[in-house]
Amino acid sequence: MAEYIIGVDLGATKILTGIATPDGNILFKNKVPTLSSRGAADVLDRLCKSIETVVQQAGVDFNQISGIAVATPGPFAYPEAIVRDSPNLEWDYVPIKEELSRRLKRDIIVDKDTNMAVLGEYYFGQNKRYKQMLYITVSTGVGGGIIIDGQLYRGANGGAGEFGHMVISPDGPRCGCGHRGCLEALVSGTAMEREAAELILQGHGRGILACSANGQVGVKEIGIAARKGDSEARDLINRASQYLATGMANLVNIFNPEIIVLGGGVAFGLSDLLIEPTTAFLHKNIFSLHQEILKIELSRLGEDIGLFGCIAAVLHNGKGL
Amino acid sequence: MAEYIIGVDLGATKILTGIATPDGNILFKNKVPTLSSRGAADVLDRLCKSIETVVQQAGVDFNQISGIAVATPGPFAYPEAIVRDSPNLEWDYVPIKEELSRRLKRDIIVDKDTNMAVLGEYYFGQNKRYKQMLYITVSTGVGGGIIIDGQLYRGANGGAGEFGHMVISPDGPRCGCGHRGCLEALVSGTAMEREAAELILQGHGRGILACSANGQVGVKEIGIAARKGDSEARDLINRASQYLATGMANLVNIFNPEIIVLGGGVAFGLSDLLIEPTTAFLHKNIFSLHQEILKIELSRLGEDIGLFGCIAAVLHNGKGL
Repeated sequence: MAEYIIGVDLGATKILTGIATPDGNILFKNKVPTLSSRGAADVLDRLCKSIETVVQQAGVDFNQISGIAVATPGPFAYPEAIVRDSPNLEWDYVPIKEELSRRLKRDIIVDKDTNMAVLGEYYFGQNKRYKQMLYITVSTGVGGGIIIDGQLYRGANGGAGEFGHMVISPDGPRCGCGHRGCLEALVSGTAMEREAAELILQGHGRGILACSANGQVGVKEIGIAARKGDSEARDLINRASQYLATGMANLVNIFNPEIIVLGGGVAFGLSDLLIEPTTAFLHKNIFSLHQEILKIELSRLGEDIGLFGCIAAVLHNGKGL
Repeated sequence: MAEYIIGVDLGATKILTGIATPDGNILFKNKVPTLSSRGAADVLDRLCKSIETVVQQAGVDFNQISGIAVATPGPFAYPEAIVRDSPNLEWDYVPIKEELSRRLKRDIIVDKDTNMAVLGEYYFGQNKRYKQMLYITVSTGVGGGIIIDGQLYRGANGGAGEFGHMVISPDGPRCGCGHRGCLEALVSGTAMEREAAELILQGHGRGILACSANGQVGVKEIGIAARKGDSEARDLINRASQYLATGMANLVNIFNPEIIVLGGGVAFGLSDLLIEPTTAFLHKNIFSLHQEILKIELSRLGEDIGLFGCIAAVLHNGKGL
């Protein structure tokens, strides 16, 4: 009897659920809005429902499911498996593993979304298993995952990998965390949108505004304007590239990794504009010892990276890979 | 027949050699100037001579030496064991392990000084073995060592732990590495001395200058002036504390360590002025998840930390601890 794996990527805006074969073939996916303002119980009920949905779509039986793993936004206390003070979900304290295991009547795996992402990249993203790998997501926020000696590194109590809150410009813009000049406050989608909005408010940014159908400008519009040659949009992206490269150079000095993989909506959406200048600036700012071993890549797993991580987590926790 | 261990801490200015028992009791030490301008061959010859000296001092036989380990300034390519482009030693390319093993006619252990220091701290510095530990040396320069899951972490080719070259103020002062605003350019002894010299050049810093016998001001004079209540000296140390705390907060966000141990001449010499404000500022800048597990300590191993690391390396590589 064939076995199947369920992965769930619980995000701030959507719950993405997939059913897959153990070799990483995702058969069916289901996407529903998170609606976290309805409270944790409601979100977790609907998360379980989306699992039922993909099981039914695939026409399989629940006893054919070899494992279920869930990727959750952090902060995530480990090994207690509790979501704590999460700004994205607006949850104070949710023992998510316990709550879901009770609802689903089986033990499930839960880890922080960026940890699942780096696991996905490690097991399914590259042709080679790079033993020292960093994953950086540039999206609404900025986060990271760490592979050390071929193992996921979570830190002392689950808090490792908060690359987005590395301060690289102490007088810089205010971050959601309350501090100034965090990487997230300089290069995230939120940061770039804020910068474009400020430009427009000052009577500039007409090239960017012209790319918007409704007066709202997001990362997409900034990208379109830059591709059309708009110098303000290009400057904005170049500034973000330089800050991203500074943050990455810091991580290279600290970790001396074999590879840094970039992912997340902003990295994917602006890949043609962001990756090359970031890489060039990075190489100017690191030692030759680090440089000669370092690879920079954009993830090829796209928005499914979290699901791939869940599949890897089930395989790795269970029978190994 | 008793066994003894030799440790050598090769520094930019001095070679410190010790002979110890396996339980970490250092019996005799020998200190000679490095004189690196005489070239690597000369330095390594004298390093071997200093080993002979401590063996003779202890009155033991060479066949009673169970292992020899050497701590060297970096960059240090690992596992090749080659000192490369070292600014402190002014060596371009020295296969130090090979050169010393040939001279001493036995296999020796060589590692980067900061790696040896964190090993020393891990095995001999604390009553408990913290599995996730960072060591930061604040001295002429700034460097670091990393223990992850109870193991020394060297990165992909020996370049991990360069905390001193984490950029935290991109428009800040120029660092010896060529970039701006590295932690080392903001909080090292060199950085603090440069700042004091600039103050004096501008006609300020009289309180600091008054503490100097010969018109030269170093970290020691800055410390004396601050203890006497001089506000410029205090401001200078407080600024350094804030930058050090910012760098440490970044490392906490990245690693989520159980403990950060501080060492190095500046940290020891200014411990009464630097540690408390740094710790206070750090705690204001990290998440509660990280904070509740984190300890900050000054190393109790003093200038022998490198020797303790060498002892640990011999024990650990050989029979284990």
